[in-house]
Amino acid sequence: MPLTPHHDSSPLHVSTQHPSLGDQVQVRLRVPDGYGPVARVSVRSNPDHEPAWWEAELIGSAGGWDWWEATITVANPRHGYRWHLVLEDGTHVAIGQGGPTTLEPLDGFDFALVAGNEPPSWMNDAVLYQIFPDRFARSEAADDRPVPDWAIPVSWDTPVDPDAPGRSGQLYGGDLDGIVERLDHIESLGVSVVYHTPIFPAESNHRYDASSFELIDPLLGGDEAYVRLIEALHARGIRIMGDLTSNHSGSAHEWFRAAYEHPGAPEGDFYYFLDAEHTRYESWLGVPSLPKFDWSSHELRRRFIEGPDSVVAKWLKPPYGIDGWRIDVANMTGRLGAIDLNTDVRRILRQTMVETNPDTLLLGESTNDAASDLQGDAWHGGMTYPSFTRGLWAWLGDAPTAKDDWFFGIPAGRPRYTAREFAEQLERFTGQIPWRVRAGCMLPLDTHDTARFATIAAEGTIPLAVGLSMTLPGIPVVFAGDEFGLTGVDGEMSRTPIPWNRIDEPEVASRIDLYRQLIGLRRASVALREGGFRWLHVDDDTIVFVRESEAESVLVLASRGDVDLGLAAPAVDATDAEALFGEATLAVADDGSVDIAADGPVFAMWRLAGVAVPVVSKTATAKAVIR
Amino acid sequence: MPLTPHHDSSPLHVSTQHPSLGDQVQVRLRVPDGYGPVARVSVRSNPDHEPAWWEAELIGSAGGWDWWEATITVANPRHGYRWHLVLEDGTHVAIGQGGPTTLEPLDGFDFALVAGNEPPSWMNDAVLYQIFPDRFARSEAADDRPVPDWAIPVSWDTPVDPDAPGRSGQLYGGDLDGIVERLDHIESLGVSVVYHTPIFPAESNHRYDASSFELIDPLLGGDEAYVRLIEALHARGIRIMGDLTSNHSGSAHEWFRAAYEHPGAPEGDFYYFLDAEHTRYESWLGVPSLPKFDWSSHELRRRFIEGPDSVVAKWLKPPYGIDGWRIDVANMTGRLGAIDLNTDVRRILRQTMVETNPDTLLLGESTNDAASDLQGDAWHGGMTYPSFTRGLWAWLGDAPTAKDDWFFGIPAGRPRYTAREFAEQLERFTGQIPWRVRAGCMLPLDTHDTARFATIAAEGTIPLAVGLSMTLPGIPVVFAGDEFGLTGVDGEMSRTPIPWNRIDEPEVASRIDLYRQLIGLRRASVALREGGFRWLHVDDDTIVFVRESEAESVLVLASRGDVDLGLAAPAVDATDAEALFGEATLAVADDGSVDIAADGPVFAMWRLAGVAVPVVSKTATAKAVIR
Repeated sequence: MPLTPHHDSSPLHVSTQHPSLGDQVQVRLRVPDGYGPVARVSVRSNPDHEPAWWEAELIGSAGGWDWWEATITVANPRHGYRWHLVLEDGTHVAIGQGGPTTLEPLDGFDFALVAGNEPPSWMNDAVLYQIFPDRFARSEAADDRPVPDWAIPVSWDTPVDPDAPGRSGQLYGGDLDGIVERLDHIESLGVSVVYHTPIFPAESNHRYDASSFELIDPLLGGDEAYVRLIEALHARGIRIMGDLTSNHSGSAHEWFRAAYEHPGAPEGDFYYFLDAEHTRYESWLGVPSLPKFDWSSHELRRRFIEGPDSVVAKWLKPPYGIDGWRIDVANMTGRLGAIDLNTDVRRILRQTMVETNPDTLLLGESTNDAASDLQGDAWHGGMTYPSFTRGLWAWLGDAPTAKDDWFFGIPAGRPRYTAREFAEQLERFTGQIPWRVRAGCMLPLDTHDTARFATIAAEGTIPLAVGLSMTLPGIPVVFAGDEFGLTGVDGEMSRTPIPWNRIDEPEVASRIDLYRQLIGLRRASVALREGGFRWLHVDDDTIVFVRESEAESVLVLASRGDVDLGLAAPAVDATDAEALFGEATLAVADDGSVDIAADGPVFAMWRLAGVAVPVVSKTATAKAVIR
Repeated sequence: MPLTPHHDSSPLHVSTQHPSLGDQVQVRLRVPDGYGPVARVSVRSNPDHEPAWWEAELIGSAGGWDWWEATITVANPRHGYRWHLVLEDGTHVAIGQGGPTTLEPLDGFDFALVAGNEPPSWMNDAVLYQIFPDRFARSEAADDRPVPDWAIPVSWDTPVDPDAPGRSGQLYGGDLDGIVERLDHIESLGVSVVYHTPIFPAESNHRYDASSFELIDPLLGGDEAYVRLIEALHARGIRIMGDLTSNHSGSAHEWFRAAYEHPGAPEGDFYYFLDAEHTRYESWLGVPSLPKFDWSSHELRRRFIEGPDSVVAKWLKPPYGIDGWRIDVANMTGRLGAIDLNTDVRRILRQTMVETNPDTLLLGESTNDAASDLQGDAWHGGMTYPSFTRGLWAWLGDAPTAKDDWFFGIPAGRPRYTAREFAEQLERFTGQIPWRVRAGCMLPLDTHDTARFATIAAEGTIPLAVGLSMTLPGIPVVFAGDEFGLTGVDGEMSRTPIPWNRIDEPEVASRIDLYRQLIGLRRASVALREGGFRWLHVDDDTIVFVRESEAESVLVLASRGDVDLGLAAPAVDATDAEALFGEATLAVADDGSVDIAADGPVFAMWRLAGVAVPVVSKTATAKAVIR
């Protein structure tokens, strides 16, 4: 593909990731040699929804690229901006996150800075490990616990039952001390954060139907076991994130029990009751066991999300001190018909976290197009599927069969994508998300709500999938069990107990080793953690991209087929390329062009030199050309 | 271009334009013969931001198209939906306002129904005539009025002075009775609504710096003259819309004078004062004479926009009774840094209009990408430039010269587009606007804020420009003077006094006749007023589209070059085509294909038969496939 001018909002091209309102920020555009004579470069922002233009100046050339810089003033919490080039022949080229266009770009696809709501210091270093507590590991203490009425106790090697009542009733008895006992495994993978699905008391094995937010389910070991887990993780330098349902509680929740049939109760306005007697109510997708919260209630806000005595604050504070929250069904929270309180809820929730411990992460589940909620005001990122996960499945999956009829919430089944379509879908669904928020979006191959990727992976594609999750911008996340090669045809069947007895089997050990290698490479590389992102080659089988920083760059190749391709200079400086992973050859010609060859399927990475940046003025003053 | 399945949210494909929340609405998709075997058709909506799917059924075939129908339930005030086809070969095709895609579409580009905030009964019939009062016509009474300090009185034939102080000071003395005297001309054009720029007292000829909203400028004849104008227009069946500045007032405004240096005044919180003494303040783009309103003030809301005693209500009621408001700088209103009260302001403003007279129109000025504000909750449409006006200039303009360096707020100058780029830009900037709101967006060739299109029009392109403004979905608007062939190189120079003395010159008469013809065709055609919209052919020189209804269709051709093109059946049924305008030939072959030929530049229209629709069930019940 022809080289085009490049910008992304990574540190290589933007002087700060954490501006405040009113700050002046330098932004830089690289124009490759041979692009054509550039007459003028400007930056267009849209403060208070009215365009303002800033003149850019050529600050120097390095590595075959001309670097242009402008100094802009951050006017709004989401400060969009785009580049506008006029070539000597009169052609206009605008560049935003939607790519270069000779037409006008849409505002939503502008690059964007985010002022305020800084993510935690450790976000860019995060590799998450997702644990579904009932199925992870069981301590001996679990044997002595009484079985609640709703539960169907089963042994660790019982097959998962996809049908009711086993579906939500099968209780394998995994518990928090079971996790503590497996920390050597978790640490050995190299992950930096454990994220666990809910652990509050409930009436199901998934516990998304909490009956209280004030204590840890005694079936999991209770509050003390949670303190033990948190302390043990922190002692190893691993962080921990919990899971909250802000859209609904269980119908057995103490608040709902107080409000149901009791219109005068203090909790009477916590839910959307549909009759005066408080017997009919709104619920999640009409499921009666999951009554929906009415966030117009100030008492609900106070108890749940607002201030130091709220549920949100409680678990961030001693003696617990977790490091963040993943919010379930964040996309529907506070939304019902003509009502939309989502913005209020997420901002209050985050403000409480900031007041309790600002070095915490807040991720919102939004399983489809999440861009409208992911502008940086509250969620640092999302658990979302269309940008990465669904495209990956459509590209790397084998031929769909009847079992794929249900595909991540799309009843029409799993489509098949080329590599090019994977890349296009990724661009489309990240194009409206500010860079800093994109960096906080999870890159799951699968979760407890989906089939396991290995179930449908075409032969040889597991390294591509894991490799891409570790090298694309975003937060890598491993759903516990994937490293054991587990399969499962849907979100129920993927909740398989971890087969610890198989950990030394060669096939399992080799899969675990793959994860260790790729996680290790991610965590060791500043370019992968926070570098820019640039496509170098895309065709029907193959993608090649580079993550770039001043210190180093990493070149990434993923292909389902055989590879024999060339990258014309100055695509990348691969002179001192160091192979990091995979079976592929890379050769640099005298003119700086790069040839890459491999037998597919292949995933490969090389460490390259950092990007040479001309000396950049930090003292320029923002001057609006005009408004 | 190959025929693809088609839907738009016009009456042909949607059972109602005015659903309420909870209503069931039938939506229909047409799939052309030869598209390929379709295995399944679904509709995907996103109620409360969580996908829901509805199964469609094949209801019949007519005119070479298969018609599919689904019944969906309207869940949110903006209810997005898209079509999802699975072909027999497993290909997925999703269809939203962004066009067909084999990937997943973005939610923002869904088709959308709007529940509530119904536009006035007459919106689809509206053809606006924009008057800049100081420059339109002057009655004899104007001779006797005292000249205010700020004004530089000039005679009607004085050239417009683009530089201060003449720029905003030149007073030509056009007045409201002057408009009354010219109603024969206005009526003869066939327009249905007069929209005038501000007429409140001010300290400039443009009056966007109002010093009061409580009376009509005595320089224009005062309140009584306004009543005379309104009554005279209404007597002729012509409606009238005013212009309000909700972002700012003039610094001479009675509210600002009360608040300035008087922190304790009742108006003290109407503006953003920056110091305790109330001497420094926020203003529109830093212009001190235009202080910006602070909409957190409830007293400001009450006086200006909320309730029966507000400014907004006053002029809708007797003895005035205007028919709508155009809101100036709607895009910036209530927005400042981290503050965004825009949604509150526009909804309150519209609610007051509904309570006073619901059969009124509310249009918001938003000169760039306006989609985020144009979702139907308050503004019925926008005065916006990128979707139509700027693309039209870039396509139909002659070669840019230095005088075009400033292009509608883009300092880089005027680009040149092909017809294809014009169409792409139109699609891009309407793709996120619900159909009903798009129908309320103005289609100006120019306004008082831009150069006049005739200034840069390439030879022979005026009929294309006027013709497109009358045939595309949206509200046609004629900036008074365009029908006289006036020119003007920018938004100041375009405010030329109307040369009434030239009205009988052949060139002027012929231009006026062009407007009369095209306005007449627009108003007489139900297809042009409210029909669907479908592209039939787009190349570098030429666009062909059809507006469709059950009663009739209108085929439209616009080209800068010579035309010789064919449309394969079943593109349109042109068997009984009736030529309405332009020099072009249309021939229908035995197989139903259509050949069109013309010498360019050309604008031509034909009336065709209405679209044959299979008998459609109105009784189906909405059934969500799944959520």
